[in-house]
Amino acid sequence: MTNAKFANDAEIIEFVLSNTALFTETKTLRVEEIGDGNINFVYRVTNDQQSVIVKQALPYIRIIGEGWPLSLDRIRIEAQCLKEEGLWAADYVPDVYCFDQARSAFIMEDIGDHENLRHALIARRVLPELGRHLGEFLAETLFHTSDFYLDNEQKKAAVADYINPDLCKITEELFFWDPFCDHERNSVSPPLKEAAETLWQDDSLKVEAAKLKYHFMNDAQALLHADLHSGSVFVKADGTKVIDPEFAFYGPMSFDIGSIIGNLLINFAGQLGLEGEAEEKQAYREYLLATIDTLWATFHTRFKALVSEQCKDPVFATVGFVDAFIAHTWHESMGYAGTELIRRTVGLAHVADLDSIEDIHVRAVSEKFALDLGSALIKQRQDIKSPQILRALVQAI
Amino acid sequence: MTNAKFANDAEIIEFVLSNTALFTETKTLRVEEIGDGNINFVYRVTNDQQSVIVKQALPYIRIIGEGWPLSLDRIRIEAQCLKEEGLWAADYVPDVYCFDQARSAFIMEDIGDHENLRHALIARRVLPELGRHLGEFLAETLFHTSDFYLDNEQKKAAVADYINPDLCKITEELFFWDPFCDHERNSVSPPLKEAAETLWQDDSLKVEAAKLKYHFMNDAQALLHADLHSGSVFVKADGTKVIDPEFAFYGPMSFDIGSIIGNLLINFAGQLGLEGEAEEKQAYREYLLATIDTLWATFHTRFKALVSEQCKDPVFATVGFVDAFIAHTWHESMGYAGTELIRRTVGLAHVADLDSIEDIHVRAVSEKFALDLGSALIKQRQDIKSPQILRALVQAI
Repeated sequence: MTNAKFANDAEIIEFVLSNTALFTETKTLRVEEIGDGNINFVYRVTNDQQSVIVKQALPYIRIIGEGWPLSLDRIRIEAQCLKEEGLWAADYVPDVYCFDQARSAFIMEDIGDHENLRHALIARRVLPELGRHLGEFLAETLFHTSDFYLDNEQKKAAVADYINPDLCKITEELFFWDPFCDHERNSVSPPLKEAAETLWQDDSLKVEAAKLKYHFMNDAQALLHADLHSGSVFVKADGTKVIDPEFAFYGPMSFDIGSIIGNLLINFAGQLGLEGEAEEKQAYREYLLATIDTLWATFHTRFKALVSEQCKDPVFATVGFVDAFIAHTWHESMGYAGTELIRRTVGLAHVADLDSIEDIHVRAVSEKFALDLGSALIKQRQDIKSPQILRALVQAI
Repeated sequence: MTNAKFANDAEIIEFVLSNTALFTETKTLRVEEIGDGNINFVYRVTNDQQSVIVKQALPYIRIIGEGWPLSLDRIRIEAQCLKEEGLWAADYVPDVYCFDQARSAFIMEDIGDHENLRHALIARRVLPELGRHLGEFLAETLFHTSDFYLDNEQKKAAVADYINPDLCKITEELFFWDPFCDHERNSVSPPLKEAAETLWQDDSLKVEAAKLKYHFMNDAQALLHADLHSGSVFVKADGTKVIDPEFAFYGPMSFDIGSIIGNLLINFAGQLGLEGEAEEKQAYREYLLATIDTLWATFHTRFKALVSEQCKDPVFATVGFVDAFIAHTWHESMGYAGTELIRRTVGLAHVADLDSIEDIHVRAVSEKFALDLGSALIKQRQDIKSPQILRALVQAI
């Protein structure tokens, strides 16, 4: 039964019972398949009082089948990354109770009382703690897995342990290649075709996108979530959980920071065309920019404090170096936010913040804004010295 | 007998005979211990017509003994790196005939007809091909082990395979930490004490050195030799061999390029105080600068040609990106050349280019030049746009 899909609900329940002792009542346990993802199988096991989630990977992509094989090592990486993040940011990730290599499955805390952040943003939910939570999650997980905290040997072993070529390849192609040329995998709405073609001719943009790709592939700074879009974040009024780190690997910190900022900016772009009162939309756009401000201010403050309290390397603990490092990380984050905006607009994988605008001409206004902003973020990232300058840029476009 | 030092010459001869079939006459074979290094044991096995070199690592540093343990994995890395370099730059490395993990030893081509480059530079030997050979060696080995040539999966597996924490730690400390503070491991000549103390107070220099250290530890661009000083290069009138890559790991290309340029500049500094006629010394300094010009021009041209002919990644093959990458590599190389100049002047491991100047006051003039040049290279590296600007900087100091 090794590496085989669970045959039935009884097998899933047996797997949970033999690997955890959480349930006080086991007779009424039942299984719901809840996975709405494209790649893995996800089940809730519940007795209506208590519940856990079981996530299982198969050696191919769920919605395609055996025709698209994918390394099973991703589920080890996901479970291990969640546990590592849990050491440093326990409030912001689900508990992992057990990982079973033979079944390519793990059991984790059910966060079913949270809502997908993308849906919350589209519904214009105001979450006052979101920016602070994301900033803390990023500062804690990135600091503690980097050379600012780990010793030389631990860090290098961790880089090797998280090598994840299959999943990195998806990002290398879908972020940094397809959207910058007329690739068959792209999906471009007809009214946007002209803008996309202009973008595909922009040589200076392509050079800057190539630099971001090269950094993504080479700069093994910290253990990244590496798929930190709004769909990987779950929220409730006073809580935030970051899930699904199966793309995790050692890469540049700015990729995680830029990915999530890019997703807030995509929603900002979408607000142009989504239904609603102008005033309400304007207020929400202000909320999104304020959330980016808070996210960055929290990251900045917390990361500096962690270095000052816990960094054992006297070279990296130098205040001047930390300041330069954080400033550089902000610039590069702007670039990765730009690639996220562009790939979600003309690439393969679109998002509901834009695609749920039904009229393609109304949608094209939001899409054009996303392309222009993405392009400006990539090309001008060295000049965007603060969230205030980002705000001015957003308003100018 | 696993992992034990060869007990006697007979064991070494037996090791060679059972692992190679090179010798046409085996009865007169004898062994000479030729290692003048500090870390490993090196033997020549010869019958006076033919010869090979046997290099063995023990799990500690040779000149210190068991009190300073060192990972045996370094000898696997060295043999494997030499073979890898041999695939791309066969003229510039010795052939490796056999690696034996159990004995932590390998057998390679004898390059005894070559001279150590450091001795050749001190003797003011003019080697017209040196710059071209080094430029070709660097372009071929760095290109073929990077994302410009390897596919995603090969590259990431190679990064893991060459993780080399023990040896990297030596560089991290001796290049980037000790020489920038009053460290007990430093060795500072009394007349240089004041200049060293000024350097240790230079906060902006320390921030730039910290950035170079961070890149060294994180930017896994290509398989580096990683100890490319003049003592690792052997030369004859028409040939160049690069040996001893036991520090090899995946790091920034600019570290290898900067290390060897730094060594040519150290000799340049030493020429101020070494014996000889002023005119002869001046001519040799001109030769050293011309060698740096040729090294860089060769690297630049060859690397670009390799990308244009062999790079399979359409993003990295973009001419604009390659030009930007090469320009950035040059800047960063200047920084690493600077760290090499400084660590060889006030750090633990000095070099004969400076230390063979007997009068410490005469030597201090050369040493001060090396410190000033090193510091300028590190701080101004972004502004040094070409070897011509390097030349102007050298002349200004």
